[in-house]
Formats: sequence, C-alpha cells, structure tokens
Amino acid sequence: MSERPDTPLLDQVHFPADIRALSKDKLRQLSDELRSEMISAVSTSGGHLGSGLGVVELTVAIHHVFDTPDDKLIWDVGHQCYPHKIVTGRRDRIRSIRQAGGLSGFTKRAESEYDPFGAAHSSTSISAALGFAISNKLAGQPGRAIAVIGDGAMSAGMAYEAMNNAEAAGNRLIVILNDNDMSIAPPVGALRNSLARLVSSGKYLTPRGLAAKLARKMPDPVQRWAEQTEEYLRGWVTGGTLFEELGFYYVGPVDGHNVEALVEVLENVRDADVGPMLVHVVTQKGKGYGPAEDSADKYHGVVKFDIVSGKQDKGPGGGPPAYTAVFADALKAEMERDEKIVAITAAMPSGTGLDKVQATFPDRTFDVGIAEQHAVTFAAGLAAQGHRPFCAIYSTFLQRAYDQVVHDVAIQNLPVRFAMDRAGLVGADGCTHAGSFDLAYLCTLPNLVVMAAADEAELVHMVHTMALYDGGPIAVRYPRGNGRGVDMPTSPERLEIGKGRIVREGKKVAILSLGTRLEEAEKAADMLEAKGLSTTVADLRFAKPLDEELIRKLLTTHEVAVTVEEAAVGGFGAHVLTLASDEGLIDAGLKLRTMRLPDSFQDQNAPAKQYDEARLNAPHIVETVLKALRRNHVDADAGAIA
Amino acid sequence: MSERPDTPLLDQVHFPADIRALSKDKLRQLSDELRSEMISAVSTSGGHLGSGLGVVELTVAIHHVFDTPDDKLIWDVGHQCYPHKIVTGRRDRIRSIRQAGGLSGFTKRAESEYDPFGAAHSSTSISAALGFAISNKLAGQPGRAIAVIGDGAMSAGMAYEAMNNAEAAGNRLIVILNDNDMSIAPPVGALRNSLARLVSSGKYLTPRGLAAKLARKMPDPVQRWAEQTEEYLRGWVTGGTLFEELGFYYVGPVDGHNVEALVEVLENVRDADVGPMLVHVVTQKGKGYGPAEDSADKYHGVVKFDIVSGKQDKGPGGGPPAYTAVFADALKAEMERDEKIVAITAAMPSGTGLDKVQATFPDRTFDVGIAEQHAVTFAAGLAAQGHRPFCAIYSTFLQRAYDQVVHDVAIQNLPVRFAMDRAGLVGADGCTHAGSFDLAYLCTLPNLVVMAAADEAELVHMVHTMALYDGGPIAVRYPRGNGRGVDMPTSPERLEIGKGRIVREGKKVAILSLGTRLEEAEKAADMLEAKGLSTTVADLRFAKPLDEELIRKLLTTHEVAVTVEEAAVGGFGAHVLTLASDEGLIDAGLKLRTMRLPDSFQDQNAPAKQYDEARLNAPHIVETVLKALRRNHVDADAGAIA
Repeated sequence: MSERPDTPLLDQVHFPADIRALSKDKLRQLSDELRSEMISAVSTSGGHLGSGLGVVELTVAIHHVFDTPDDKLIWDVGHQCYPHKIVTGRRDRIRSIRQAGGLSGFTKRAESEYDPFGAAHSSTSISAALGFAISNKLAGQPGRAIAVIGDGAMSAGMAYEAMNNAEAAGNRLIVILNDNDMSIAPPVGALRNSLARLVSSGKYLTPRGLAAKLARKMPDPVQRWAEQTEEYLRGWVTGGTLFEELGFYYVGPVDGHNVEALVEVLENVRDADVGPMLVHVVTQKGKGYGPAEDSADKYHGVVKFDIVSGKQDKGPGGGPPAYTAVFADALKAEMERDEKIVAITAAMPSGTGLDKVQATFPDRTFDVGIAEQHAVTFAAGLAAQGHRPFCAIYSTFLQRAYDQVVHDVAIQNLPVRFAMDRAGLVGADGCTHAGSFDLAYLCTLPNLVVMAAADEAELVHMVHTMALYDGGPIAVRYPRGNGRGVDMPTSPERLEIGKGRIVREGKKVAILSLGTRLEEAEKAADMLEAKGLSTTVADLRFAKPLDEELIRKLLTTHEVAVTVEEAAVGGFGAHVLTLASDEGLIDAGLKLRTMRLPDSFQDQNAPAKQYDEARLNAPHIVETVLKALRRNHVDADAGAIA
Repeated sequence: MSERPDTPLLDQVHFPADIRALSKDKLRQLSDELRSEMISAVSTSGGHLGSGLGVVELTVAIHHVFDTPDDKLIWDVGHQCYPHKIVTGRRDRIRSIRQAGGLSGFTKRAESEYDPFGAAHSSTSISAALGFAISNKLAGQPGRAIAVIGDGAMSAGMAYEAMNNAEAAGNRLIVILNDNDMSIAPPVGALRNSLARLVSSGKYLTPRGLAAKLARKMPDPVQRWAEQTEEYLRGWVTGGTLFEELGFYYVGPVDGHNVEALVEVLENVRDADVGPMLVHVVTQKGKGYGPAEDSADKYHGVVKFDIVSGKQDKGPGGGPPAYTAVFADALKAEMERDEKIVAITAAMPSGTGLDKVQATFPDRTFDVGIAEQHAVTFAAGLAAQGHRPFCAIYSTFLQRAYDQVVHDVAIQNLPVRFAMDRAGLVGADGCTHAGSFDLAYLCTLPNLVVMAAADEAELVHMVHTMALYDGGPIAVRYPRGNGRGVDMPTSPERLEIGKGRIVREGKKVAILSLGTRLEEAEKAADMLEAKGLSTTVADLRFAKPLDEELIRKLLTTHEVAVTVEEAAVGGFGAHVLTLASDEGLIDAGLKLRTMRLPDSFQDQNAPAKQYDEARLNAPHIVETVLKALRRNHVDADAGAIA
C-alpha cells in the first residue's frame, strides 16, 4: 500500500542489545522510526494497530533498561507486541503477521526467546510473571519479570488474584500498567474511576521526583543526595491506593510517550528495592497515526489500509450478513417483544454485536468489563429473580467462566442464555481464540441445552427459541464470519427442544451435521450422489439433548453414518456414539464415524484453509464415507492379549 | 450425643418474621439459644461447625433488620448457613444435614425461598446479589440484596470483578464482609494485611458514629441532628480504602458478636442512600464453643462429637490410608529427590495434604488463597522457567481455572502437573463438590495427559511418573476417601505414558476400567466368571492418550467390552468409542458399552450409595454385560425416515 519508510537507526537494531547500546538521546528517533515501520507493516498485512502504536516508546524504553531476554517481559493479551517483535529479531517477517505460516498476532514462546510467555486472552501476565520471578528467586538466579498490562485487563479477577499474591516476589516483579483508557471497548467499573483520579492531576511523575521518593527507602548516601533535590518535597507520586492496598509500591502516572522520561523512571524502578512495583504509564491508543488516534475502536484491529487516507480495504460490500450482526438484530427483536430480556457482554460490545443492542436498550444491556466469571453469575442472579439474561461471550472466553456455568447455572438449572460467538476455527487469531471445546465442556453438564446454528436463518430461530425457553440453561454456538446467504425468515420460528431436521433424504449414507458444516455436508452429498450413493443430510441442531428418535432412525436405516461438527473430540460425535452404544445400535455392524477438529492446536490461516487442514470440508466427508464403506470388517491384525 | 438444649425463645421462632417481631433486647437471648441448638445439632449430625457459630448474631441481626425473603440474603460458600436454616423453617430437619434425603450442607434454592441462591463454591455471592439487585431495579420493585462473604472468599478474582461492577446497584446492594481471619486455612495475601490494618485500631464502629457519618450525605434535618452528636467528629469509620477504591461506601469494623450493635448498624445501613455499602464485621470462628474457638481449623468440618469434651467420633483408626495422605507422602518423596519440584494449593492446604508438604518444604510450597486461576498460570510461569510445579486442586475447583488450563498450559504445552483430589462422587458435600466433569473437559484438550489412579499404590506410581514427565501438562485424578488397602510399593515405578495394564485375563468379556471402579470391575468379573463368562479386566490408567494398542486388542478379541469410569458422559468411555469408531472396530458387530455417571446432579449420600444410584457398582457392570450379550441386533422398531 505504500513505500517502506526511511528508518536508518532502526535498520541498525536487530535485537534489544542494539537498543541498549544506543545512547538515551537516540531513543526518540528510534521510537519514531519504529512507529513508521509499524504503520507501514500493518497497512500491508492488517492486524492490531492502535494498541501497538500506543506502546512504541514503552517497548523501546523497556528493552533499553532491562536485560531481555534474561529479564522476562510479558505483554498482557499480546496484541500490542508488534513493535516488540520488530526489535526482537522478527522485523523481516513482520509483514507476514496473522497470515498462514507467518508470525502470530500475539506473543508466542515458539517464535522467540524474547516471548517468554504466550498471551492472547487477557489478564494472565501478572500470574505468569510471578511464576518467572519466584522461579528465579528459588533458583537463586538474577532476573526480573516485567508484566505490561492494560487498564482494561486489570478489571479481570485473575489480575487481582495475582496482585494479591505478589509480595513474595519482592523487587523481582514489576507491573507496568498501560493506561490507555481503552481496551477494545472503553473500560468500565470502579477501577476506571480510580485510575482517572490518579491521572486527573495532569502532572506526570518526573524521574528525579521518583528517585527522591525511592531514596527514602534506601541507604543513607543516596538518601542524602535525594533530600537535596527540591522534588523530594513535592510528592508527585499521587497515591494509587488500590495497588498500595494490594502490596505494590505505586509509581506514576508517567507520560508513556516521553521515551527519555520513561527510561529514567524505569531505571529508578529497576534499581529500587522496595518490593513489587506498579508503574502507571499513560499512553494513547493509536498514538502518532492520526486516523487511529481519532477513532481508537475502529483501528483496534484493521485490515490493509492506505496510510495517507487511513481508508481500510474492506473489500466489496454486500453479501450475506455476519453471524454477529444477525444475532444482534435477532436479540433486539426479542428484547422489543419481551422487556424481561437483558443482555450481558464482557468487554466485547462490538465483537458480540451488543453495541447495537445497547444503543436501543441502554438500561437492559450490561458491559461488565473483562470479567466473564462475574458476567455468568450476575446473569444467574438476574435469572433467579425473573429476568431472561443473554450472556454473549465468545466460545473461547466462556472457558473463563466454566465453574460459574457449572455451579451457578447448571446445578441450579437457571435459564441463562449463552450466545457463543466465534465457535469453531476463527482464522487469523489462531488457536488461542478458536472456539473448539465448548461442545465437550458444555454437553457433559446435566441440564444444559446446547444448539449450533447451521446458517444465519437458523440462528434467528435459535435466538427466538432461547428467548422463549425458561426450562434451564440454553446455549447456541455460531461461527465468526458471514452467513451462507440463505433467505432470512420474516418471523422467527420456535424450535422444539432436542429436535433436528432432515435437509435431504437418501438411503445409503447419512450425514449428521451440527453447525455450519451443513453447507459442506450438502456438497458432500452431491458428490456422493454423483457416485451413486444415495445420501441423507440431517441438521441435528441440538448437541444436547440429542434428537434420539431421529438419530435412531438414521442409524438403523443407512449403511454408513457420519457426524460432522466444528469442535474437538468429546462433543457432538462422541455423544452420538454414546447413544448408539447405549442402545446397542452399533452392534448391528453399523459403520458410524465422527468427524471433528484434530487433536492439536491449529495455527492461523484463512478459515476455509483451517477447515481443510482439519479435514472437515466436503471432500473429506466423502473420503470418510467411502473409506467406511470399503471396510466391512476389522483388520485382523490383533493377536492375543499381551 | 447429648440432651437437646433448653431454648424457650427459639422455640417460638419458626421464620424470620418471628425474629422481626421480637424486641431488640430479646435478640441476645435468641442468639444464645440458637448457638446452643446449633452445637447440639452438629454434635449429632456432623457438618460445618465453626463458620456457623461465627455468624449466629449476624444471622439474627440480618433477619431482624431486613425483610427476608423479599430482601435477598446470599451466604457466600453457604457452609455457614446452619443457624440461618434453623430460623427459616428448617429446624425440624437440621439434624439431617448432609445426610441422605436430608438438608443440604449449603444453601439450596430447592429447599427454601429463604435460600435465593445456592452456594457451595466460594466468592459467587456478590455477583449473584448484583443480579438480584439489578433485576429489582429494572422491574421497579423494592428489595435489597445482601451478600455475606468471608475474608478468605474476598481473595478470589470473582469477588473483585463483582465489586468493580457494583455501582449500578446503588443502595440495593449490601455486602457484609465476615472477617474471621480464617476461611478453611488462614487467609493469605495482601488483602489480609489490608483488613488487619482496618481492625487493628481495636475500636469498633458505634451505631451513632455511623449514623452521623451517613447523615452528612443526607437531607438537612437529619444532618443537623447528626451534627449535634459528638461522634460526628470522631471519624471511627477508619478507611477501608480498597473497597472505597472499588466504589463501595465502607462501614466498620463492627463487633460481629454484639447483636444489638449489629442491628443498629444494619438499620443505619438499610436506611442509608449512599450507593453500595460494605459492612466490615469482625467475628470469631467457632464463637461460643470452647473447643472450636481454640482450634478453628479442626472444627471447620466435623463428624459427630461429644459436646462437653469436644471429642470427635472419628471411628476406629487404622485401615487403608486416605488418597490425600498418599498423594502428600508421594509428593514429598519426589520433592526430596528433585529440588525443582514445587507445590501449589489454592486455600486447601489441609484438604489436599499440602500442609504436610509445606511443613517440610516451606519455600517450595505455595498457598495462593482462593485463586485457582492465578494458581494455574503461576504454575505455568514456574514451568516455563524450569521448575516442576504440582497444582493440587480439587477436580471441582479446577473448573475455576479452565481457561488457564487451556490457554496458558495446554496451548503452550507447559509441563504443569495437576493433582485432582475429590474426583468422582464425594458423599456428604453433594453435587456442588463432585468431581464429575474433569475427564470431559480435560480429555478434549490437545497436549494433555490424563491419568486416573485405580488404587493408592497406583497413585504413588502416577505421582512419580508426573514428576519425571516434562513433555507437557499431565493430570491425575483420585477420589475422596481411603484406598483399597493394597500393598504400598517400596519404590515407585515410572509408568509408560499411554499404557494400561491387564489385571486379569479372560476370553469373552472385557471390562475397561479407569480409576477406582477397578475394585468393582474385579468383583463383577468374579460374578461373571461364576456365570461361566470368562472375563478380562484392564486398568487403562490413561484417559488420554488412550492405550490404543491394548484397546484394539481387547475390542477385537472379546465379544463384549464395557468401559467404566467415575465421571460424566464425554470422558473416557466416549474417547474409547471414538477410537473404536475411527478404526472401524465397531463395524464388526462388537458389543461395546460405556458406564459413567448419570446425566443429572446427584444429592448427598454415602459415596457407595451414590455409586449405587449412579449404577456403577459390580452388579450394574454385570447387568450391563448380560444385557449386551442378550441383544445381538438392534430392535427393528425404526421405520422410514420421518
């Protein structure tokens, strides 16, 4: 999209040691060049833009002051790591980020020794850093651990649990709070107010002021020097009581775009010995790139864009609507119909579509911040008092609230509705964001009803069904991306719980599909029919309860049956096998096969290619059927029992 | 064990309305009688003693001041609810607590309208209370929500997430912090220090002091009255900055055993309109019963005991060791051998046996408090830096850290060792504490190794195997209770990953056992042999990876094969079925059945009876085998496809 920027100083920096070799007065130029390189790179590759731009100076300052990789630097969530990757030996591959075979969009242990801990879900960095710090302490090794965590990530309970346990690390642990007043959505809650008060004085901490304050805790000679400085009396360290209550020594706020000041503050922090420290750094998301500064949410994650205009290359418009949008519209319609319905998101209003819902129903839409555990039990409380909550949480993030689903929702059989976006493989975000496990972890639970939408019209019916179902917890999963382009219903249908549907009828082969593999199942049926194999395709709709009657019929009237799902082993197919085994249906020589995600974590790629790799596209279904038909008995290679 | 105490006033109290009808000066007597009744009841039934005794006055005061059940009272964890149950219509059944068909040991919605939310896992109460409060607010209904939460439970991230979101509830939400300086183990972390500072002044808040402080936020006439009181100037409300930072109005500390003072403070709190309030109440665990006061940990949960001596009726000693003790001894031996091994517990040092480990290795044993999420990612950090962490967490509580297992451990393939105590059914604690789902939620994950110990000697081998295995995450599950009494190994064996063992060989029937059902499987084999059915029994040891070679042999050389496990659907049996289906082994007319926990939540009972109810004892295995053998083909009741 643009010429490579001119970066003479950055061209000499390959690893952090090169940054440490630079004099302090060069760091501003290096930061500027690093920012230009990052804008240039993301304009061609797409990816997370705003958060990386916000930490350019911080990246340079940390690597200048600390001894990475021996000091462990852990970027929370990891999507702000692009500048870090550029200066840690990965500049030559930075334009491959998030693409097949390219760099991950997050930190990744396998990529570099400068990524000591992979992160893509939020709020893990302090716990991990504590692990590194304590390990070094036990081993008697030097080496600090530095966690860089955003203010939004601080709203998660996990961060609090870690801070509450930080004392044992002493000065080996440094937490840098990257306060940009904006995670993906504006942060919410009391913590935000608390941080705002700290920043509101408008004065940033000076290195000398900090040195003086720290000196009071240090041996005499240093202290005497410090006492001579006038900053000693000013007290620009403004408080930070929440962190102080949790045992941290609070330092800040620091201007996160003044690289010289950052370096000097971090040098003080590095050399202090006052226990775990929290450095409150104020940054601006999108810093240094006008369009991203002006509209931080739109430039959080971007596709390719034109640097001068900021215009993103979103490709041709039109086409089927995204599942997220279909869900949001359907939920809005239900909320118009029933005032007892409320909607909950955990810091993903735009990703789940609830931003649109919130615009219409601000009082009945709740963004609880990055706090999935609270979201689910809050919903359980609402349900217990007669409301009808929809919890819209990505499949991968609902893992954060698994115990709450079990203990607060399923055991009490409370009618909480779970809308699990991003089910199955998710493309560029890779394995950390894949929604692969929900069928296994939810279908094992008593009382749950678990649906998967086969297309966008089905999703509308399912949202309607959930809204009307008060019998207990009910969940629907649907993928990232756009629908198939089917006709949308003029009014939604209420589906019968635990009932699937026959999509096309045949005689020899039955494909039992759950979710959006239905399209591939139908293609496979065409291919099988072309080979003379009459094929039934069913959309089971429900992973739990199974449509036992339909499955019984399909398994007893076809020669081969294949289940297909966008989830890992232990889900839909395993439950169909269990039913078939319970009822002795398999005893009759039925050829029953299950197709599911592979037992491995798949790297980023285009979703269709990921499904190809997973062997879940139409040709693989055909191959599975043909292989099953060819094998009429077990290979007799099994001898006596060892 | 003792005569019923004389309780003339309590005898007139059947429901909270009766407490509200009493004048304030009667409440002390009522509290004393309630305490006597509770001691008497638990001395005959066993159960949680200390925590209930600590909240006798609080129970009386809350029901006197608030309009339960319209005001929603939510007891965090719920094990302190015995006095509450006695005064909410359940006194006649209190001696049945935790027994088959009796009252639950926790709050339970199905039991009473005075239990608006069931709780047995910690730290859910504030989120749930917020749900009730917001529901009432949306519906324009009166009614407050009161969460009573211990200081230990406050260390969990979930409580923090909820507090961070409390503002919207306004004065409908009241959190009562029950600070007894002792959850099950002594609380840990920075929060504890913070609370200690609040209490250390030694002065308790007086009702008039609070009234005065609150009055400053109220309309003029009240304020004028308040300003005339001298307490206005004293500022006995001592701070509570952590809670204030989180948007709460902090009140306290209050003497939790002075029922009149409690009532007056709570009346003030009820009538205030200053937003969500946190009332810091200081109580003593075991209060009013000498033996329990003196040794709070030993009287947290008790068996029947003699009231006068405090002696617990633990039954005859000797017998096989408990799995927990076997684990602890085995881990200690490994830690002596390898200094890189560290141990982590989340507030369960005694329940997991790590208290013994900590006594020997204080620097290498970490109790992180009720913070399972942090525990797992902390372990991941330790592992990434070269230590060998054992995370000892009950199966049911590991649900709290599921995302951390997936995202921080499994995706990065870090060698974290999970010791999952309390796997399977757990007896008196009922369904909330059952470890039913771990096989489904762990075996679906790539990279995991999942073992189940068949007996106490196997557990020793498995701990040794885990200690030596650096290939990735590895977990072992074992039940509550005592071993079988097998000979203990003089030195532990290193097991081959993914290899099971044949326990006895036969020809017609194969029982594939995972875990401690092995004993029942062997009994079943005896019963089958007596019927002329030659039976193989295998202990598979590994739910993941499966011993494919062994399973292949067993399934191809026997007429019927049955899997048995102490876990819900989607686990071991489902994975065996999947393998059999993948390889076409089922096509040959094999009669393969899976036996697992029922798809329902089972109430408390003796474990053997729970397994009877679950149909997982020897006779049920025999029945399953016989039924499978009788059915040689599918019942032909399936017609054409509908």
